[in-house]
Amino acid sequence: MTKQAALDLLLGKIKDSKSFHLALALIHWDAMVSGVPQKSYAARGEAEGWLSMETFKRMMAPETLQAIETLEAHDSELTETERAMTRVAGRSYRKAKAVPPEEFGAFRALVSESNQVWEKAREKRDYEMMLPYYEKIFEYQRKLCDWYGYEKHPYDALLDDYEIGANVETLDRFFSALRSEIVPLLKEITDAGEQPKEITGNFDIEKQRELMPWLADFTGFDRTRGKVDEVEHPFCLTVNRHDVRITTKYHEDNLLSAIYSIIHESGHGIYEQNMSEELEPYALADCASMGMHESQSRLYENMIGRSRPYAERLLPKLQEKFEFFKNWDTDALYRTVNIAKPSLIRIEADELTYSLHIMVRYELEKGLMEGKIKAAELPTLWADKYEELLGIRPQNLAEGVLQDVHWGAGLFGYFPSYAIGTAYGAQMMHTIKETAGIDVDAAIRKEDLSPVTNWLEENIHRQGSLYLPEDLLKRATGETFNPQYYVNYLKEKFTGIYLKSTVNN
Amino acid sequence: MTKQAALDLLLGKIKDSKSFHLALALIHWDAMVSGVPQKSYAARGEAEGWLSMETFKRMMAPETLQAIETLEAHDSELTETERAMTRVAGRSYRKAKAVPPEEFGAFRALVSESNQVWEKAREKRDYEMMLPYYEKIFEYQRKLCDWYGYEKHPYDALLDDYEIGANVETLDRFFSALRSEIVPLLKEITDAGEQPKEITGNFDIEKQRELMPWLADFTGFDRTRGKVDEVEHPFCLTVNRHDVRITTKYHEDNLLSAIYSIIHESGHGIYEQNMSEELEPYALADCASMGMHESQSRLYENMIGRSRPYAERLLPKLQEKFEFFKNWDTDALYRTVNIAKPSLIRIEADELTYSLHIMVRYELEKGLMEGKIKAAELPTLWADKYEELLGIRPQNLAEGVLQDVHWGAGLFGYFPSYAIGTAYGAQMMHTIKETAGIDVDAAIRKEDLSPVTNWLEENIHRQGSLYLPEDLLKRATGETFNPQYYVNYLKEKFTGIYLKSTVNN
Repeated sequence: MTKQAALDLLLGKIKDSKSFHLALALIHWDAMVSGVPQKSYAARGEAEGWLSMETFKRMMAPETLQAIETLEAHDSELTETERAMTRVAGRSYRKAKAVPPEEFGAFRALVSESNQVWEKAREKRDYEMMLPYYEKIFEYQRKLCDWYGYEKHPYDALLDDYEIGANVETLDRFFSALRSEIVPLLKEITDAGEQPKEITGNFDIEKQRELMPWLADFTGFDRTRGKVDEVEHPFCLTVNRHDVRITTKYHEDNLLSAIYSIIHESGHGIYEQNMSEELEPYALADCASMGMHESQSRLYENMIGRSRPYAERLLPKLQEKFEFFKNWDTDALYRTVNIAKPSLIRIEADELTYSLHIMVRYELEKGLMEGKIKAAELPTLWADKYEELLGIRPQNLAEGVLQDVHWGAGLFGYFPSYAIGTAYGAQMMHTIKETAGIDVDAAIRKEDLSPVTNWLEENIHRQGSLYLPEDLLKRATGETFNPQYYVNYLKEKFTGIYLKSTVNN
Repeated sequence: MTKQAALDLLLGKIKDSKSFHLALALIHWDAMVSGVPQKSYAARGEAEGWLSMETFKRMMAPETLQAIETLEAHDSELTETERAMTRVAGRSYRKAKAVPPEEFGAFRALVSESNQVWEKAREKRDYEMMLPYYEKIFEYQRKLCDWYGYEKHPYDALLDDYEIGANVETLDRFFSALRSEIVPLLKEITDAGEQPKEITGNFDIEKQRELMPWLADFTGFDRTRGKVDEVEHPFCLTVNRHDVRITTKYHEDNLLSAIYSIIHESGHGIYEQNMSEELEPYALADCASMGMHESQSRLYENMIGRSRPYAERLLPKLQEKFEFFKNWDTDALYRTVNIAKPSLIRIEADELTYSLHIMVRYELEKGLMEGKIKAAELPTLWADKYEELLGIRPQNLAEGVLQDVHWGAGLFGYFPSYAIGTAYGAQMMHTIKETAGIDVDAAIRKEDLSPVTNWLEENIHRQGSLYLPEDLLKRATGETFNPQYYVNYLKEKFTGIYLKSTVNN
């Protein structure tokens, strides 16, 4: 196969697969927003399965590997984009090939069953129901480590699957920094005893909806190339770069929930909207990694949306709609949107404690892969770790080890990418402020985030998956991943809110 | 190829194509209801085109014909279902093969352009803009007649494309009955001069929405296996038999529009929901023809929804919501929902005059295919025919020859299926009342249409496309297509409303 033939073959396969992906995205979207009739599940599932399998089969045809190997042999003649395409295609081809098809099939069936069992087990708070599934799923993950291969630690193989380049060495360093600096800070805050006032009462959903355009536009999410819809569990879905859909859920008794989910999903959405069109034919107009995606959503949600200048802009908007905020000032709102306290449920956790929830899961997953922990021990170990890191123990399994969908759905090694992403964001924000010299607070006060978003677009968004996440981060910030920025950011912010007598700056 | 291998091959192709169809249905649905961003059109169109072409290519592979021919050779050994599958697959394979691919490609491109030109031409009321497109489109249609082939009249080839078995001989007979009986009746009504009172004013859309469940449930549309949504131009879309979606559009200043569009689309929806599941693997769980589909929507809309007993049930519902109807009685509402008068716009036409609008188009299409009419003459001939049949002349092209999307979109021979369908419905209704002895009025008064719907399900819906439309109609009504039932129905109904002194029965 000539270099040109290999390029044509790969580009052709990528082009075809785009149509399948658009179809699958819209089938998924429809299921999430349209309220699909129960009886229609089977036929839809069959079509979804068939379309996924069809595009998978096309990608996994032997000539794909031949093309990849041809391009690898011509490495020095490739453009940067062609080389990246080869890397991404080669990685996914080889990862898929590494797993024996019959094992993969059995695992898919297991997971589809265990997913359903998990819902019931959580409801009944019955760990025994889940145990045999967890045991099999963890056993499969251990085999996966070998199939994928690793250099130092088996868990590295799984971490790398969600966050390319992530490994136990880096994550141990990351979490030990959190342990030594954030765990004591949380204890100090908890001991200080004084909490900001809370937002209570009911807030008309129609009025909440009226805030949406302002919230989405503020972040820079382009509503002419996407939209904001309502669903049960908010997410972001890309149909194509000109049709990026984010979602929220309005709660009458929880005003902040929709506000911050819109900002969070906007962060995901902007990333998708800003990827370079030129990368599309190469299948590189895609996030560099899960962590990189999460870095954008959390940067907008927390570092911008929960900043003091943001509270300053948000307050008059809330006062316009809701009598409740009549006597509030910026400082009160800023403190309230940053309430930090130990809690048991990860998805409801605040900015300060979120990564501690991840640490619990990371340490357990690592122990499971090392063979030092057995599935049967998880409920107790889980509770012990919460007590150790957050100072509280779950009173039942639904607020303990059975709270997350992930393990029962076969997602293992996924959790750490959430925390890494948040830390990437802090490192970027440091560069934006210190190296690029952008006055982020002033931009927020002017309700014009373009200096920040332009920097992110240029340095992160546009680049898609042209570079490995570690390279992308280094190109953008001049440094490899350094969790200290994140630790410093948290310390400074929450010390300011909780432990200083004067809160004005 | 053995008979079994041929069956397996065809059934396999049908199974795969179902996944493509589900995907295409949801892409289309999404475009209609989700408000797709303008900039996303190109990428979506590309994916849609690719998926359509992909399923087409699979169906048109040489082995498909081999399988069809093998099954045709084993005709006597086939089950009824297998034979029907072979007939349907053979027909569409041969029709597609009859058209030279390069001519088809050029026509698709022409039509895509002319569709856009038509919108502008209608807006500007400029026939010269459209003329070159119409000329080329009609020329292609004349070639299509030869490619498809015909026995008696070239237009037969195109009529049969939309309504299998339809031809000039039957349609001439049909329209001449309308001409001799309905045209004079309309003149009599117009001359009588007295019109029922009209519904005027604004009707709160939220209250209109509240009527929807009652309207849809009354017809028997199963909302647990589908749903009713809102769009700009109402339609019915089938994702699968357990997920049939109908749509409506509420107008504040036109209360009847949404009511009758819900009943109309419910008729389409019930047909789709009631097709036999056993026919699905054979691609026979599909309407017998366009006309058969229209027979169901119009039977529910007009023969049930605009009947006197329906008005009796509808009135209290309207009175519950709208003060406007306070002093109305059943008779007044019955007469109002049946207002009949000459008009210029087909899609707004009433039950009595609708088929006359179709007759105009039928006679012009026939003349064009015979070569007796030239595209340049259409504006004048159109106006002349409206004057002759309906007694009024369009004052501009937007309410004249440029009103319909069809010709500019390359749909030719399509219009008559609307009128044939309506007449099928009248023939069925005659059988339901006279032969099956079902008291339709009593069923409506009891708000329980099940005797009617059960008959239709058993005799029409369940059968899908197992039989040719003419055979299906004969099996259901004991008679081949007889337009006299339709003519009699219209005469009796509208004479009763307009030309009898006593309107109570």
